[in-house]
Amino acid sequence: MSGDRPRIRAAGRTRGVPEATVARLPVYLRALHALADTGCDTVSSEELAVAAGVNSAKLRKDLSHLGSYGTRGVGYEVSLLVDQISRALGLTQRWAVVLVGVGNLGHALAGYAGFASRGFRIAALFDADAERVGERIAGLDIRHIDDLDRVVEEEQVSIGVISTPSAAAQEVADRLVEAGVTSILNFAPCVLQVPDGVDVRKVDLALELQILSFHEQRKADIAKGPHGVNGTAINGTMKGGAVTPLPAPRVDDAREVVGQ
Amino acid sequence: MSGDRPRIRAAGRTRGVPEATVARLPVYLRALHALADTGCDTVSSEELAVAAGVNSAKLRKDLSHLGSYGTRGVGYEVSLLVDQISRALGLTQRWAVVLVGVGNLGHALAGYAGFASRGFRIAALFDADAERVGERIAGLDIRHIDDLDRVVEEEQVSIGVISTPSAAAQEVADRLVEAGVTSILNFAPCVLQVPDGVDVRKVDLALELQILSFHEQRKADIAKGPHGVNGTAINGTMKGGAVTPLPAPRVDDAREVVGQ
Repeated sequence: MSGDRPRIRAAGRTRGVPEATVARLPVYLRALHALADTGCDTVSSEELAVAAGVNSAKLRKDLSHLGSYGTRGVGYEVSLLVDQISRALGLTQRWAVVLVGVGNLGHALAGYAGFASRGFRIAALFDADAERVGERIAGLDIRHIDDLDRVVEEEQVSIGVISTPSAAAQEVADRLVEAGVTSILNFAPCVLQVPDGVDVRKVDLALELQILSFHEQRKADIAKGPHGVNGTAINGTMKGGAVTPLPAPRVDDAREVVGQ
Repeated sequence: MSGDRPRIRAAGRTRGVPEATVARLPVYLRALHALADTGCDTVSSEELAVAAGVNSAKLRKDLSHLGSYGTRGVGYEVSLLVDQISRALGLTQRWAVVLVGVGNLGHALAGYAGFASRGFRIAALFDADAERVGERIAGLDIRHIDDLDRVVEEEQVSIGVISTPSAAAQEVADRLVEAGVTSILNFAPCVLQVPDGVDVRKVDLALELQILSFHEQRKADIAKGPHGVNGTAINGTMKGGAVTPLPAPRVDDAREVVGQ
């Protein structure tokens, strides 16, 4: 079984840490680095929870999986917790990454300071467009995709980033896997098929916008009051006149919309 | 209470749909659109689950919140399910979005076809750099941030995208909120403070990489076998020699690393 999420492991846990906790550890780490920058030596679970945008009970539970319980009345030692989370995430070593697809997005990613500062070194950039090969971006020459195997082996690369158009993404994923890459970060808006043992995470730039539109619609419904919430209103004007109905809604199943 | 996640509502539900389900609906929608493109009229929960990268029990539970149960032996009607999810997500109307910060990333986002195809129209681009104002990107002129209030009102904008450096993000968020924006998509690697009633979602381009490094480390541990997994090995060479220890690990708490 494979897909665009890490495969589900026994009880959704890896190394004794639930997947959902793993996904929050980078958020805690970022908040802790910010606290360290302001000179904080210790932090309470409440403060850290607010900084990370979660509730404090969940935070304490998550950190307990790392053997971190804090000290009553003092909280957590910031530098110790940074070390513990960094080691749990495998960030005590620097990972070499290749990036394939140097369009606007790939260009932005190649120059993204947040990769290097968090332990990821872009070892090489690749593009299928022969005309781009040799162009220098963020201190790296763009190389042809045919050099992928050699670079992955020479630079000991285990992680590949795909920022190609969707149509090319699966072929690129296949080539990455063939070259020996075992983790893929996919920015193309498509689902990748990969063999067992390869992890894929997807960053969908529009997905989060769709979650926000859910909340915007809900807020508009609340503003309208209970009588405004019906099949007609939901397709009508909300915050203004710039409303273009997408696929024509079916009147006969309008009652099935959640919250109706 | 506010932060970089939607505030926690009663029982983590909005409009009767759990937050976690809301977050998966765009994934289902994307998979359904891909199926529709290949001419599929119906889809089984198993097929759709594989395409979306979740397990089928979770998929059926999620869709039941929308009143969609499928038909035994047939599955779900693709076009009907697309309509139901689109309406649940508020995508039956087109949302106007402003984007603030037109560096490499903002440039990539301005040209990202995935926004328009999923119901989001970029109404205006803003930058604080007076020299960029007037530059034309993706069919839009870059405007000065001082025009924000007027544009948000005129274009009935409720969603703002922040792609500025971290240092500017909170000020931009404040200005967006002041102008009347009630949902923010934040690409800057920082936590934003916003008032009640404003939803913030964050896209962290490096966060997913850190989750992958967790899995890479785990795979390397498994490859080494149980005797190789100790405080020394975890900081040693894994796939090769290009390993730079980050903050020096503390030997005295090495035993606290998960999985040790």
